[in-house]
Amino acid sequence: MNIEERLLKGDKRACARLITMLENNDPEAIEIIKRLYKHSGNAYVIGITGPPGSGKSTLTDKLTKELRKRDKRVGIIAIDPTSPFTGGAILGDRIRMSDLALDEGVFIRSMGTRGSLGGMSKATWGATKVLDIYGVDYIIIETVGVGQSEVDIVKTADTVLMVMVPHLGDDIQAIKAGVMEIADVFAINKADLDGADKTQLEIEMNLDLNEKSDYRPPVVKVSASRNENIDQLIEKLMEHRNYLEKTGKFSERRKRNTKLEIIKLVEEELMNLIMDKALEENLLESLSEDVLLKNLDPYTARDKVLKLIK
Amino acid sequence: MNIEERLLKGDKRACARLITMLENNDPEAIEIIKRLYKHSGNAYVIGITGPPGSGKSTLTDKLTKELRKRDKRVGIIAIDPTSPFTGGAILGDRIRMSDLALDEGVFIRSMGTRGSLGGMSKATWGATKVLDIYGVDYIIIETVGVGQSEVDIVKTADTVLMVMVPHLGDDIQAIKAGVMEIADVFAINKADLDGADKTQLEIEMNLDLNEKSDYRPPVVKVSASRNENIDQLIEKLMEHRNYLEKTGKFSERRKRNTKLEIIKLVEEELMNLIMDKALEENLLESLSEDVLLKNLDPYTARDKVLKLIK
Repeated sequence: MNIEERLLKGDKRACARLITMLENNDPEAIEIIKRLYKHSGNAYVIGITGPPGSGKSTLTDKLTKELRKRDKRVGIIAIDPTSPFTGGAILGDRIRMSDLALDEGVFIRSMGTRGSLGGMSKATWGATKVLDIYGVDYIIIETVGVGQSEVDIVKTADTVLMVMVPHLGDDIQAIKAGVMEIADVFAINKADLDGADKTQLEIEMNLDLNEKSDYRPPVVKVSASRNENIDQLIEKLMEHRNYLEKTGKFSERRKRNTKLEIIKLVEEELMNLIMDKALEENLLESLSEDVLLKNLDPYTARDKVLKLIK
Repeated sequence: MNIEERLLKGDKRACARLITMLENNDPEAIEIIKRLYKHSGNAYVIGITGPPGSGKSTLTDKLTKELRKRDKRVGIIAIDPTSPFTGGAILGDRIRMSDLALDEGVFIRSMGTRGSLGGMSKATWGATKVLDIYGVDYIIIETVGVGQSEVDIVKTADTVLMVMVPHLGDDIQAIKAGVMEIADVFAINKADLDGADKTQLEIEMNLDLNEKSDYRPPVVKVSASRNENIDQLIEKLMEHRNYLEKTGKFSERRKRNTKLEIIKLVEEELMNLIMDKALEENLLESLSEDVLLKNLDPYTARDKVLKLIK
């Protein structure tokens, strides 16, 4: 059997192989996804985000175990910061999740952020398609960090879970404000700590200000490490799913996400084209020299590169 | 006097106006920077990054005051998370820095991250040029967050200061690993807290592993809120600057940064071109519909968009 047939039959190793091919920019992987694309669309995607130290990984672990109790197959994509020099993901396959890795119904993959010039979304997005075709019921995309690229990824999920935690310091207010609007469900993790009620109050007040639809994101206090209230959190995630499906907003959201995905793919492909040409002709090198010497301004340099592809 | 002449004479309001024009994508702002570009290149750029809650803003405040004591003029660009819906920066012009704002030798600007499709770097980068031409001696770029786009911006600085803090929770290890390699100087803020020594040890161990040049980033323990060791931190920043200038690495780094800037400008301009065309022809709308219905796979959709510019 070739890798395509094996993937369709739910072969875990074929799934892992194909994601690796995507990470390596192997064009064959893209051809395979193109051919199998019609088999996708059955997995429900949950994006988990939140500031560093909020315990997203532990929570992902516990949510997955709860979904497994309900006999659901789960794929996890953990986005890790990447070393700009080695290009590899830092945390490997999340040692602390190793008991999950032994479960046949769970697929876990860490993916790096792959340098500065995009690429992150391409491979991540492709990986969700592979997992979808492979046949999981739920895909959890977890991102460390609260930066713009990370938000871009997580917001293409069907349901976005924002993990907060008491006492996050000065600029938590800013982070909350920046990503609050993409959250469908809030979890306050480490809710046994002092300050959880205050954090909840702050979130609720913020939600009061932003109310503009018939859906109000619920706020659930949990403790991932003590495994408390995880079932209640799952219920809230399911309620959001039901809300989307009942109101027709599910296909609306998938359409918006599809648009974002196409734009990202275009953006990345364009950059590849430009970089190939610019490097080939050693153009960037000479332009940046000229700009540095102020023989040229950067906008004119930009226009010279643009001419290459037109 | 027109805005160009006023900027060259060091008029603060002309500086503010020009940055606003950049944020609004006003083509006239770009023409002005093009014409004045030869007057740039004198400001030294310090990028400050670190996880949320590490007290970067307070530290920026104190560093600026120390630079002012040394009679240096300072421009501050604080990158704030942007609401994806309103497009505006969240924190405004940093209320807590208001005493600095009254100082004629300090220019402060908050800039938002402006939605998902780039644009952040264009305006930020342009703003540093404007400040440079305006005539500050130092430009401090401070980013909230540790995401990829934020790292991309901060790493185009001449000197990158990474702010750490004791006890940042689970995934601090990952963050450190992801951005450590771009740091030229480390500050451990809130060094009066327990755990500062442990954090220092961790950073030093990491530096031991990565040693590959004749420069080893120093690690300085400070307390921004108590104004402790700020002068020592400034010394370390200056030592890095001296190191770059003495070894010829300064122009090497500026050349690398110029290259990154040109690439970003190209990327953003191309995306603008494509998006304008795609929206005009309603292409994205119909393609995403087709992809959703699985009449089309996303890669083929991408190729149809790319055809627009060829």
